[in-house]
Amino acid sequence: MAVGSGNLPTMFPVQGFQLAAGCAGIKVAGRKDLVVMALAEGSQIATVFTRNAFCAAPVQVAKRHLSASKNAKAIRYLLTNTGNANAGTGEQGVADAQQSCAALATIAGIDATQVLPFSTGVIGEPLPLGVLLSGLPSTFATLSESGWSDAAEGILTTDTRPKGASRQIQMNGETITITGIAKGAGMIRPDMATMLAYVASDACCSPEYLQQVLNRAVNKSFNRITVDGDTSTNDSLVLVATGQSGIMLSHDDDGECFADAVEQVCIELAQAIVRDGEGATKFVTVEVASGASVEECLEVAYTVADSPLVKTALFASDPNWGRILAAIGRAGVTDLDVNQIKVWLDDVLIAEQGGRAATYSERAGQQVMDKEELTIRVDLARGGVSETVWTTDLSYDYIRINAEYRT
Amino acid sequence: MAVGSGNLPTMFPVQGFQLAAGCAGIKVAGRKDLVVMALAEGSQIATVFTRNAFCAAPVQVAKRHLSASKNAKAIRYLLTNTGNANAGTGEQGVADAQQSCAALATIAGIDATQVLPFSTGVIGEPLPLGVLLSGLPSTFATLSESGWSDAAEGILTTDTRPKGASRQIQMNGETITITGIAKGAGMIRPDMATMLAYVASDACCSPEYLQQVLNRAVNKSFNRITVDGDTSTNDSLVLVATGQSGIMLSHDDDGECFADAVEQVCIELAQAIVRDGEGATKFVTVEVASGASVEECLEVAYTVADSPLVKTALFASDPNWGRILAAIGRAGVTDLDVNQIKVWLDDVLIAEQGGRAATYSERAGQQVMDKEELTIRVDLARGGVSETVWTTDLSYDYIRINAEYRT
Repeated sequence: MAVGSGNLPTMFPVQGFQLAAGCAGIKVAGRKDLVVMALAEGSQIATVFTRNAFCAAPVQVAKRHLSASKNAKAIRYLLTNTGNANAGTGEQGVADAQQSCAALATIAGIDATQVLPFSTGVIGEPLPLGVLLSGLPSTFATLSESGWSDAAEGILTTDTRPKGASRQIQMNGETITITGIAKGAGMIRPDMATMLAYVASDACCSPEYLQQVLNRAVNKSFNRITVDGDTSTNDSLVLVATGQSGIMLSHDDDGECFADAVEQVCIELAQAIVRDGEGATKFVTVEVASGASVEECLEVAYTVADSPLVKTALFASDPNWGRILAAIGRAGVTDLDVNQIKVWLDDVLIAEQGGRAATYSERAGQQVMDKEELTIRVDLARGGVSETVWTTDLSYDYIRINAEYRT
Repeated sequence: MAVGSGNLPTMFPVQGFQLAAGCAGIKVAGRKDLVVMALAEGSQIATVFTRNAFCAAPVQVAKRHLSASKNAKAIRYLLTNTGNANAGTGEQGVADAQQSCAALATIAGIDATQVLPFSTGVIGEPLPLGVLLSGLPSTFATLSESGWSDAAEGILTTDTRPKGASRQIQMNGETITITGIAKGAGMIRPDMATMLAYVASDACCSPEYLQQVLNRAVNKSFNRITVDGDTSTNDSLVLVATGQSGIMLSHDDDGECFADAVEQVCIELAQAIVRDGEGATKFVTVEVASGASVEECLEVAYTVADSPLVKTALFASDPNWGRILAAIGRAGVTDLDVNQIKVWLDDVLIAEQGGRAATYSERAGQQVMDKEELTIRVDLARGGVSETVWTTDLSYDYIRINAEYRT
């Protein structure tokens, strides 16, 4: 199941960024499972990786190569395989990830440290390195700036649909393009280790600025979604600036405009992951307003969004406001005055003064709950901070998918 | 569904503590839904209440009466109703809870502040006070020290079985009895607001000592269980010492022996709640050893125990060790060296050195996973602290129970 349309939007090519997808047969024959991306010379790169202490071998290797590239040769290729996460594979896994980078480097005539590896798929199985390497030459041969759709399909695992977003912004008569793809369906299931996301732009900027743009975008997008509260061992996100547009960006109005566009692309990709969430029948926005701090807004938002009781009520389309109040109440916010809190389903006020709103009717609540997309809005009446996260319901299909997977 | 036997153990009466259950018809006619407990004069009482900011009206009133009793007349009666949680009911709810105390006080010839009220059932509906009061006189008339089984049934809501535990310990040729009952099936579902637990003893002690005994017991029992990570608005736990045994206890060897017995009764009741967890097909012990602090042991234990991915793997009897590693890795323990960590299913070592153990076989893991009761054991190799929590799997029935409830 999934919520909303499954079609990719128009994917504008990014000058200086090429993509190709091939079928190596890593887990299933004939399925796209190998994706190569090439960054033009002079490209800058920014990255964010999982904070899980058990991070996968490709994440460890990618971090080493990034560190090496800072004082030497720049990153020029991204190599992604599906079908195997190369996680929980110890030293052999690290060696395998390095080998895959070395093989691509040989074909491309660069150093192995100029390649970043990414893997997604089952955990704890050795990477079938030979199979992976056998698919490299033919995939490499098809690199193209119009390869976005193929790549969007090539990085999928249990996802039911490809996920992409693309924007063009105008600056002094010139066009800057920002295009991205992502994969992930459980947020975050460690087996089919989500999520991976790649965003590229032809903007020109310093690596420090690019990393700041990415950090800001992540905090409003990929760090604001939850399907089941789990965090993967392989999460990786890359933002590339090829510089080919010739438009130099920094901390000014144009730079702000670019950062906004990157954020929009990341939000669209992050929301696409939630819409394709395992067993999802609803796309739910949780807005917490009038908080005293970002932290407490997020505490409340995630406690509501991750509550199994709220999620099963959403699945049942049951306007069970007591569960929302109870989740807010246990979020751990210090000195919370529950009598000041208001809660809405879309525009329907459901709770105030510690209980059901006098104006509330079950029929009005039911009308909102019957929708496929809805907003739970909480006003804490404690300050001026607002935060938004996105989530899904918890359905029989979530149990089926996660209980039957691997067997 | 529930795990293990559903029979009550032998429930030893406690001198000076009487119980009675009646059918008032609060939600369903003919069902036991009203329980009165009477404390002999001279009894001491210790309590623990929910930390949910949205605490229910009876919890608010109970706290006020306890506070009043400190400098005036002691608590003499506990009044419990099922079928309605009197939560999310605002000022009217508080007035209703006070009224119910006043009515019982009139019958008993005491002050209203000498009664503590407890409610469990649906949230957000006004308490049907008239119906409740109509059942009081006949229930009161049947108070008896042998009323434990009736009371154990009388406090249930969606529970599939009554929950009780009882111990007798010998001290200098005298016997001290500790007997308790509990209710709760989702830990903790805010609708049928669990949990309630009442433990009584004929020991003689100061209220300060009694509260310390209770706090210690709670931290090893009711604060160590999780079914779905939710926390109720009505959670209440009471420990009574009637003093009728004449055996005075304080901080000495005898006191330690008493505290241990209270802890055992509380652990048995807490485990009974997990075994009766909503949709539970497994009873799972999560032991985290060799941690540097209680906090980090609990972080790891609860992250594993609450992970939807671990819980669905347990439901599927799938020895999916990657999910356990990933949960440990995201628990937020600072500077965790994953290569030092070992994980067992019962006595089968499944993971070490960041991946699958060399000695592990899928068959050995499967044999443990096929059991109805099993232990996930984690060794952090960081220090000398250990903690244990208990939980269940996450099944289709959990979704069914929580999606269909109320509709």
